[in-house]
Amino acid sequence: MLMALECLPCFLRQALYAARLSTPAADLRQKIVREVARLLPDLDMTSTPPENSMLVYETIARLSGCPDPFLDLKKTSNQRALDLLPRLKEILAAAADPLWAAIRLAMAGNVIDYGAHHDFDLNQALGDCLAREPAINHYGLLQKDLRTARTVLYLGDNCGELVFDGLVLERLKQEVTLAVKERPIINDALREDALTCGLDRLAKVMDNGTACPGTPVPLCSPEFQQAFAAADLIISKGQGNFETLSETRAPLYFLLMVKCQVVADHIAALTGMPARAVTTGDLVLLRTPHWR
Amino acid sequence: MLMALECLPCFLRQALYAARLSTPAADLRQKIVREVARLLPDLDMTSTPPENSMLVYETIARLSGCPDPFLDLKKTSNQRALDLLPRLKEILAAAADPLWAAIRLAMAGNVIDYGAHHDFDLNQALGDCLAREPAINHYGLLQKDLRTARTVLYLGDNCGELVFDGLVLERLKQEVTLAVKERPIINDALREDALTCGLDRLAKVMDNGTACPGTPVPLCSPEFQQAFAAADLIISKGQGNFETLSETRAPLYFLLMVKCQVVADHIAALTGMPARAVTTGDLVLLRTPHWR
Repeated sequence: MLMALECLPCFLRQALYAARLSTPAADLRQKIVREVARLLPDLDMTSTPPENSMLVYETIARLSGCPDPFLDLKKTSNQRALDLLPRLKEILAAAADPLWAAIRLAMAGNVIDYGAHHDFDLNQALGDCLAREPAINHYGLLQKDLRTARTVLYLGDNCGELVFDGLVLERLKQEVTLAVKERPIINDALREDALTCGLDRLAKVMDNGTACPGTPVPLCSPEFQQAFAAADLIISKGQGNFETLSETRAPLYFLLMVKCQVVADHIAALTGMPARAVTTGDLVLLRTPHWR
Repeated sequence: MLMALECLPCFLRQALYAARLSTPAADLRQKIVREVARLLPDLDMTSTPPENSMLVYETIARLSGCPDPFLDLKKTSNQRALDLLPRLKEILAAAADPLWAAIRLAMAGNVIDYGAHHDFDLNQALGDCLAREPAINHYGLLQKDLRTARTVLYLGDNCGELVFDGLVLERLKQEVTLAVKERPIINDALREDALTCGLDRLAKVMDNGTACPGTPVPLCSPEFQQAFAAADLIISKGQGNFETLSETRAPLYFLLMVKCQVVADHIAALTGMPARAVTTGDLVLLRTPHWR
């Protein structure tokens, strides 16, 4: 998905938020936001938003001297999600179709995202999500494709959210690999978060070799590219992974909560739905149209 | 009120919206947003947001060649408000205190603002506003000050909204002057809008000599500055006028709907209220603390 003009003010808003997390110094915060503004006119509008955002967050890290401003938030969201685990397991135990229930919880867990949204009540958001039907629901197709797939690559998204992803991973009968990011970027999960959330007991954990809040395959490590090419089925979690993979020809299923109208419009266009048929806050389980 | 870092992404968002209104050409829109981004690092953070916004909107007008991108929206909102007038008069006829009812409607009319918000349902918004108590309500003080005031200067804000202001103007027993902006800026009311909305029958109409979405007194015309200095009481309508006058020593009453948290926090600080006591969407009738 290409950059939209809307991404430019959004990057600046994100820069302000990250600057606040990075430093208490008002002067330095101002310098960071100004320098990010200076980057905007020269961003590559023919690339994806997550790829461009790397330059934004690198600038913030360089100027602030803080390489991982979201570290505390990431730890907190891991812990909050782990605290919820007993309740989530109860929900699953009562479900008629535990895999479907796990997928719904994993979509709901995508509400944890400090890049797009800053304030949310996890409990409230979970309840809302579980009460809502996905705007696009290709679960039937996923069940069918899972019947023949022997390997699944699961592209993780954010910290905390990983705990919800684990509910899906433990129900997959395939050989599963979980991919996370190599270096800190926003609140995206790293290998250490996967370990904290106990995901190494459910899947092989690898990183994709980037500090991109998405999965730009050509920029990923050779090991990851190989895993990507070899997987029978790939579950791509969250908006950043979707933004970088929406045009990629691969056995992809996208699982996300839509967090901005640019992405919503892109999903509608991709699936031949009318404009505004998808909107911010919608849950989506989408089989890519760019596959056999 | 000084610029906040939050104003920078907000300006860029506004630039994108105005660019869309100004031209259908995607390339030109992109150029406009990029050029506005280029301005941001050098904006004067020791000035007010409306004063800085002049540079933003001048840039948009210069690049697009469209001096008044909001013209159609302004005409539409004048007409929609005039269409509502019979219903508004019914509400007033049934009110125990018609001046108070008119003030509440005028605050509610402040929801019409294409700078801060783009989508709103006027009917819905009116109902919501009338059902809500103002977060700050100095109506008792206003009644008292009106008893001794012989002249009132009313600082108009947006098109459409003017019709609601008229309900207040026709209930004031003082000699009233309505000030509007001299040249197009966002959807702020000009002299022709005051005439369209019939306000010249209720007050002397003058412009403030600027194309600023506020009232930066030192930049205003000598005639306006004289009227400002001479008025026994000034009613300042809307957020832009508040932002430029919040520190001015004058007999000011501010009447507005709060449209961003930066302004909300400034109001809280100004009135000694705890942080977050005022929030976006709040209605405010505030007697300035910077007066006798």
